[in-house]
Amino acid sequence: MNISDATFQRLEAEFNAPSVRSSTSPLLNRQWISDAEAQQRAGVNPFPPGVVAPRPVFDIKKMRELLDMNNFALRDSFYELFKNPVFFPRYNESLAEQRARTIQRWRLIAKTGVFHNTLQTFTAEGRQRYEATLESVGAMEHSMEIKMGVHYGLFGGTVSLMGDDEQCAKWTPKIENCQMLGCFAMTELGHGSNVKGIQTKAVYDIPSQTFIVNTPCEEAQKYWIGGAFQSARWTALFAQLYVKGVCHGVHPFLVRIRNEDGTTVPGVTIGDCGAKNGLNGVDNGRMWFSNVRVPHDHLLRRHSQVSRDGTFTSNFKSADERFGASLASLSGGRVSVSAGSLVQAKLALSIAIRYGLSRKAFGPPGQEETRLMDYPAYQARLIPPLATTFVMQLVLNHLKAKWQRGELGRELHVWSSGFKALISWHSLQTLQETREACGGQGYKSENRIGPMKTSHDVALTYEGDNHVLLQAVTKTVFSEFMKGVRSGGNFKGHFAYLKDAEGLRQADLSGMDARSAAFALTVMRRREAALFARLAADLQKRTATGVSSLQAFNDCAVLVEDAGRAHVELLMVELFHHTLGDLQRGGETEVADMLRLCGALHTARTVDEQVVFLRCGAVSVGEAQMMHANVGRFCETLRPHVLSLVESFGYPPHLLAPIAFDYVAHNSKSRL
Amino acid sequence: MNISDATFQRLEAEFNAPSVRSSTSPLLNRQWISDAEAQQRAGVNPFPPGVVAPRPVFDIKKMRELLDMNNFALRDSFYELFKNPVFFPRYNESLAEQRARTIQRWRLIAKTGVFHNTLQTFTAEGRQRYEATLESVGAMEHSMEIKMGVHYGLFGGTVSLMGDDEQCAKWTPKIENCQMLGCFAMTELGHGSNVKGIQTKAVYDIPSQTFIVNTPCEEAQKYWIGGAFQSARWTALFAQLYVKGVCHGVHPFLVRIRNEDGTTVPGVTIGDCGAKNGLNGVDNGRMWFSNVRVPHDHLLRRHSQVSRDGTFTSNFKSADERFGASLASLSGGRVSVSAGSLVQAKLALSIAIRYGLSRKAFGPPGQEETRLMDYPAYQARLIPPLATTFVMQLVLNHLKAKWQRGELGRELHVWSSGFKALISWHSLQTLQETREACGGQGYKSENRIGPMKTSHDVALTYEGDNHVLLQAVTKTVFSEFMKGVRSGGNFKGHFAYLKDAEGLRQADLSGMDARSAAFALTVMRRREAALFARLAADLQKRTATGVSSLQAFNDCAVLVEDAGRAHVELLMVELFHHTLGDLQRGGETEVADMLRLCGALHTARTVDEQVVFLRCGAVSVGEAQMMHANVGRFCETLRPHVLSLVESFGYPPHLLAPIAFDYVAHNSKSRL
Ligand SMILES: Cc1cc2nc3c(=O)[nH]c(=O)nc-3n(C[C@H](O)[C@H](O)[C@H](O)COP(=O)(O)OP(=O)(O)OC[C@H]3O[C@@H](n4cnc5c(N)ncnc54)[C@H](O)[C@@H]3O)c2cc1C
Ligand SMILES: Cc1cc2nc3c(=O)[nH]c(=O)nc-3n(C[C@H](O)[C@H](O)[C@H](O)COP(=O)(O)OP(=O)(O)OC[C@H]3O[C@@H](n4cnc5c(N)ncnc54)[C@H](O)[C@@H]3O)c2cc1C
Repeated sequence: MNISDATFQRLEAEFNAPSVRSSTSPLLNRQWISDAEAQQRAGVNPFPPGVVAPRPVFDIKKMRELLDMNNFALRDSFYELFKNPVFFPRYNESLAEQRARTIQRWRLIAKTGVFHNTLQTFTAEGRQRYEATLESVGAMEHSMEIKMGVHYGLFGGTVSLMGDDEQCAKWTPKIENCQMLGCFAMTELGHGSNVKGIQTKAVYDIPSQTFIVNTPCEEAQKYWIGGAFQSARWTALFAQLYVKGVCHGVHPFLVRIRNEDGTTVPGVTIGDCGAKNGLNGVDNGRMWFSNVRVPHDHLLRRHSQVSRDGTFTSNFKSADERFGASLASLSGGRVSVSAGSLVQAKLALSIAIRYGLSRKAFGPPGQEETRLMDYPAYQARLIPPLATTFVMQLVLNHLKAKWQRGELGRELHVWSSGFKALISWHSLQTLQETREACGGQGYKSENRIGPMKTSHDVALTYEGDNHVLLQAVTKTVFSEFMKGVRSGGNFKGHFAYLKDAEGLRQADLSGMDARSAAFALTVMRRREAALFARLAADLQKRTATGVSSLQAFNDCAVLVEDAGRAHVELLMVELFHHTLGDLQRGGETEVADMLRLCGALHTARTVDEQVVFLRCGAVSVGEAQMMHANVGRFCETLRPHVLSLVESFGYPPHLLAPIAFDYVAHNSKSRL
Repeated sequence: MNISDATFQRLEAEFNAPSVRSSTSPLLNRQWISDAEAQQRAGVNPFPPGVVAPRPVFDIKKMRELLDMNNFALRDSFYELFKNPVFFPRYNESLAEQRARTIQRWRLIAKTGVFHNTLQTFTAEGRQRYEATLESVGAMEHSMEIKMGVHYGLFGGTVSLMGDDEQCAKWTPKIENCQMLGCFAMTELGHGSNVKGIQTKAVYDIPSQTFIVNTPCEEAQKYWIGGAFQSARWTALFAQLYVKGVCHGVHPFLVRIRNEDGTTVPGVTIGDCGAKNGLNGVDNGRMWFSNVRVPHDHLLRRHSQVSRDGTFTSNFKSADERFGASLASLSGGRVSVSAGSLVQAKLALSIAIRYGLSRKAFGPPGQEETRLMDYPAYQARLIPPLATTFVMQLVLNHLKAKWQRGELGRELHVWSSGFKALISWHSLQTLQETREACGGQGYKSENRIGPMKTSHDVALTYEGDNHVLLQAVTKTVFSEFMKGVRSGGNFKGHFAYLKDAEGLRQADLSGMDARSAAFALTVMRRREAALFARLAADLQKRTATGVSSLQAFNDCAVLVEDAGRAHVELLMVELFHHTLGDLQRGGETEVADMLRLCGALHTARTVDEQVVFLRCGAVSVGEAQMMHANVGRFCETLRPHVLSLVESFGYPPHLLAPIAFDYVAHNSKSRL
């Protein structure tokens, strides 16, 4: 592909402010990286000193392929590219430096041509390649992944999903090759989660056949728009569409915000969002529009159209359906965010588990100290999140496949919302736990976990705030549940299991194999069933007092979120055991056995960490005790395999951190 | 006091590398700060727009005095000082800039003379003043607090606690007025939590009457030493003391590491610890010693002495007692860390709760949107940590008083270890929750929560890793418990409640006032009793199989930590209700009533968040359901008072953040 060199030459000039060029920020672990590289080249055992890699009981390569799904060579080629010093990690850079670095890196990644045909023709192969690229890049540095995700995924995705065929054909190739650099302008200062409430106006002006865009008040300023402050020339703008005085709700427009030379176009004002807790490689900006004229054919018109003479038409009957469709690009965003989240968790575990295997502390008097990983209390902190990470990756792979197939329905919405929420929380928790588990070393930037934690943190908020997403999940699923209730128990689809509610209640967990699908499903279904029933009763009680159903829902929202989590965790168990079944049938017994253990630990810890299972009667006190014991038991069983397990994440040494290897040598005086 | 101006002039010159002076980093919220200041001067209602401050049902000033305990005017004078632009928050500064800024600020704080007589004569007043200062400074910026805490508290504290009267008289005045700048060198690359295992050697050389200090291997390099990389001239060095070939264990020495001009002394090599996840104003360093000769009278000899001719004597019989005493300065450190932790939590809550009161999202169609704080699901996220913060502050005040009185026994050790662990975890969790509760705005540096979170994170690790501390608590308390068991049930002291184990078991929670001491004590005691009994049984089972008691303890360490937490949470409830009783008796009914609600919510959420209460039989499923309902109920009851409650933390607007006030005006286009 002909990557637009001109774009990057211009951008690099724009971003390289004098302060950036004169930067003296130290590259703290250059030495370490070249060591890791040299070791790898020399074929040295990539384990911390003193750690004897146990003979894996499963095929690590097969496991990795199962986790990564596709584009293995492509991923490896990116990891290879990241040995270029441009990609070496740097800390303590100023905002301007970090942003400049991101542009520099982007050029090298874009020049590989990897984005060719990822947007133009919507193919599974293109999406897979796109996602594999983003995940690989995220392993190098999170800002870079997000910067590209905004341009290709949110901006490009909106054009390709919301534009009609003609629009797609015209613009997507230019987006792929960076001739048109864009951003995604949905959020406003006053409205984030509540997208419907945004106030930017696009009024169709019949005489001039243009949409006139205005920011009617300060709260309507576009806010947080990634890439808007410096790099973007275009934006996918979301605004309330007015035609002949009638508001038709939120619609997407392709709007030019800057000329190619970087100056803003008349009527557009752009400001900086400034320093963030992390992710400072992305130049988030704020935008105000004042009588900006957008050409008639820049309304992205796959779903809604305005004729030149001002007639509004739409493929959807209701404004709600239209609104839902216009958010489609967010589903893709959630798939990416979830995948990116797990990358951070996998890296952090790869680092911390290796450290825990070589680091020693305390021990019997006069004898050698004990490895951290040999303390059950330590295992209990790192092995459960490791197990959950395997489960979530395999579950997410189902969502990725669905998205790559081009499905866009209700199920995609529920899965992408629910998985994004639980996966991003899990990853943050894992990053925090690994930080603590590495003691003081976990607090050193060069050991990566801290910077990963701060940059990942925002994943809980963007592409839908996690709490709001869980509420949305319940809202959608609850109506399905109520259909079954109202039909007198003729539950269908997901809730079909409720046709045998009695069997579910009576199932004897203690008699089941704790690693079986039946065991996990029983526990998770009992909870879901109890919470949805409870929710139905509580909502009914509230509305009976005369409050609106919206009010009732808000009043019960703690339960609503619990129910949402219950639903998503059940879905996860179902999909996970689906994968296990496939593996078993495909003869992949060793991989399946290892994963089954991970699944069992995941289920046990899920119950062991949430009072709700006991509170709603899904498990008895005795069963909860058994679950607690299972956590310890499965940690012990998995203990010998933790190194093989993190090896199967597939990250080469130079993407990990000094404490994952010989940290004593790394810190030696001779290296000062 | 005659603050050593020379010291700071030199330091400022040393720290102001050219790159720092040419810094162009933007001060993002200068405008906002001067606004906040102007508003305050003009007596403007310091609440977010649209928020009508409810009439407080308790005396906010009294509440603040209860929380802060002492030095109210001093605290306010610091808040006033922080209006000086030197103290304005800055983000995106390089490591060098941040370190320089800390020195610049330190000078202004030191010049107030506030540290006079905080170390020399050990008085309660001096310690109170010292702690009030650190807390006030921590509200401005955490690095500055830690930088000063290391010099005055850890370095100065070691000299004043471990030196004999002569040594104290000689050195502490110079430490107070910064003529002797110091650091605290305990941790080594190879040994952090396990201090006993440190390897730095100090061998007494009779002919020269000096201690010869050496770093025998790379793992023995001193690591993480705050102030060592740039500012410190001296260190309180912890090393294994050898006299006539016999090792007497870890002892503290006062050692010069740099000349006054900043050059290192012969034999000392110093390196940088580099960029950290936060707290970058502190210049943590690494140190190697090669035949460094320390004068005979620089062994801090309050507890152990070496005569000139090489005879070792000690006030303690056992090496273990001696070791315990030599860690005394850490107890003070834990008091400060806990107090500093709560400052961060209080600030974050002051910011997030104000935002939650003015920020609106979603709402009934066509009507005004709903304030976040009016969503029960949102209340459930912020009000419980608010309640816990009140409880923990009052509990910590007991520890502070104990420490200020100069107590140094077993109880101080248990309290300081246990409170530090639970308070620092609570604060981190609160910072995370408030970050998420502020949505995207919580991710902006200028809104402070993010930078507070990253800089506070290390509090979980230093001055004792939290997990290790909880294990230590249990170890200490368990022997007391076992005394009672072995005596056939004649429990004493803390465990005296077990003499009526039957009464405890039979108490009917549902018949009690959920806000009463009896209620909270019943729940917490039941758990403690169950876990300690269980621990006794499990340890016994393990040792019966022939493993060592150390091994048994490690095997049971998950339970050990649960038991430690149970003990500390019970202590907290006891101390909290102690304060409530005092208030009630003192006629402070309104303040007491408000706090009683906070206590009730704290207890309810504690049970509601930990499966262990159900698992060990401390509460029944029905009781757990009641607790869950209580969380919602008490949140609702406290909802009208949240603004008054955060007001009573006493932080002026300019220490909060833009989102705590009129964030729309703050973000207006006219301010670009
Ligand atoms: C770094 C960064 C990059 C971003 N990039 C982009 C971008 O490129 N383009 C773009 O358009 N946007 C972007 N965003 C915006 C992002 O999508 C929004 O921040 C997000 O949608 C949340 O909106 P908000 O920040 O307004 O939070 P709010 O919607 O105000 O929510 C604040 C809090 O209130 C809670 N809450 C909200 N509603 C309810 C309710 N009904 N019940 C209970 N609790 C509730 C939420 O859980 C949350 O904790 C970005 C944000 C950040 C921080
Ligand atoms: C920013 C910063 C500033 C510091 N300042 C100073 C200073 O000025 N002076 C100074 O002397 N030190 C300082 N320290 C060092 C600090 O006190 C140590 O980091 C701390 O004591 C923990 O030691 P460690 O880092 O070696 O962790 P480790 O002791 O290696 O612990 C690593 C992990 O193992 C776990 N673990 C350890 N033992 C066990 C066990 N028996 N069972 C189960 N789990 C276990 C811990 O929970 C922890 O998660 C500082 C550290 C930092 C990060």
